[in-house]
Amino acid sequence: MLEPLQIHESATADTIACFIRDQITASGLAGAVIALSGGLDSTVAAYLAVRALGPDLVRVYNMPHATSNPLSQEHACLAAAELDIAFEVIDITPQIDAYFEHFPQADRLRRANKMARERMSIIYDMARVHNAMVVGTGNRTETMLGYTTLWGDMGCGIEPIGDLYKTQVRWLAAYLQVPSEIIEKPPSADLWQGQTDEEELGLTYDDADWVLYHMLELERTEDDIAADGVVDEETVAKVFRLVKRNVFKRRLPLYPGIAAYWRQPPPAVP
Amino acid sequence: MLEPLQIHESATADTIACFIRDQITASGLAGAVIALSGGLDSTVAAYLAVRALGPDLVRVYNMPHATSNPLSQEHACLAAAELDIAFEVIDITPQIDAYFEHFPQADRLRRANKMARERMSIIYDMARVHNAMVVGTGNRTETMLGYTTLWGDMGCGIEPIGDLYKTQVRWLAAYLQVPSEIIEKPPSADLWQGQTDEEELGLTYDDADWVLYHMLELERTEDDIAADGVVDEETVAKVFRLVKRNVFKRRLPLYPGIAAYWRQPPPAVP
Repeated sequence: MLEPLQIHESATADTIACFIRDQITASGLAGAVIALSGGLDSTVAAYLAVRALGPDLVRVYNMPHATSNPLSQEHACLAAAELDIAFEVIDITPQIDAYFEHFPQADRLRRANKMARERMSIIYDMARVHNAMVVGTGNRTETMLGYTTLWGDMGCGIEPIGDLYKTQVRWLAAYLQVPSEIIEKPPSADLWQGQTDEEELGLTYDDADWVLYHMLELERTEDDIAADGVVDEETVAKVFRLVKRNVFKRRLPLYPGIAAYWRQPPPAVP
Repeated sequence: MLEPLQIHESATADTIACFIRDQITASGLAGAVIALSGGLDSTVAAYLAVRALGPDLVRVYNMPHATSNPLSQEHACLAAAELDIAFEVIDITPQIDAYFEHFPQADRLRRANKMARERMSIIYDMARVHNAMVVGTGNRTETMLGYTTLWGDMGCGIEPIGDLYKTQVRWLAAYLQVPSEIIEKPPSADLWQGQTDEEELGLTYDDADWVLYHMLELERTEDDIAADGVVDEETVAKVFRLVKRNVFKRRLPLYPGIAAYWRQPPPAVP
């Protein structure tokens, strides 16, 4: 069912690498820093950054919390070793736990958002230290579903895989020879123990990508897509709901646009 | 020299209040949370939010670090008392200091950015707790000059005073009867001891606003504005430089736009 999403892997990899190189050159920065969780998206972003800049100009940071799966860090370390790039571990437990000491009853979503924002804050600090661009790791599926933390993991200078659906990121990973254990494990934001994306979303990525493709690229309606019978009606409705509900995560803060009325009262509302 | 920026205060206040009310209603949220530093901008934002929603739906948070000026917190407390709104102090010292323990040599700009992002992270956590909108406190002068922390103080849902120059925010503050000690003190981000905006920017707000107005609203060139002789050439050049250099703080992360090339290699660059 996902054939229409097929990509020309080498052209995609080269175009993205060219984009990374161009943007970093244009900004006058000296390299890239990436928050490398050990998951698929950040690993692919790191591989593409090395393709663009070579290993000497790419630095990756794994930022575990005490509740993170140790396997994530192992995978990050493995990918960094394969790429032969600078790899550093920065534990975020002290800061996160210092804050939640005041809110011991905080639920896991509050903790997860705080961690995502802490990681953004640290990767920007590292960017400043190394005069580097923060290279983001978000894909089109999670951006459209709103499966991100606003001003958290979405905070970066460029989004090299931002146009690719999760399915396409996986295909690209295979082409780039990302270690198979990273490609094959169940996707997880690893923000609490046992978390998997698909369970939390209540959607498989296959279904989500199929619906998103028909919704966004083919501009088909919800009813029309459901009528195909490929994905059940409830799932189609859920994808549409998530895309619409999370518009606020895909735009800058809104302004009133008052400037036109500085000098005089705005026209009365009829 | 700043007469052309004059605003119709009551119309401006009403239009902004209407914008705040409309946006919060449309989003289905139950009120507003604001990071109240005790400075002019966040105080005006709080006054406008109360004008929009009444005092019961507005909560403000003062988030000092050990290095903050105690006067800032006093002013925040004073404004909250005047407005009769819920006021809470959350000390960010433990988290900030836990991080910089590993980087004792970090300069004050790194510390300042980390603090701004920590405050964003906390105000979003409070927004979640109270099902509220994060109301931002950025003005047009600082946004255009890039005198903000990316994904830090610029992180919010709406920017009620985002169209107003600093000069106009000060006029609006007087109209709203903001306590005079807040209006009259030298503007400061209070991110280190003795910091003032004008000293750090190397610009007075009067000069900056005059140049920005002629640059942005009247669309005049740098040479043309300098030729007026109202503000010295070097200052005009500095404002133009800052506006251009900080474009990246006023946009979302960039995407390669690869989607058009999924299936086939992109056309060769001639």
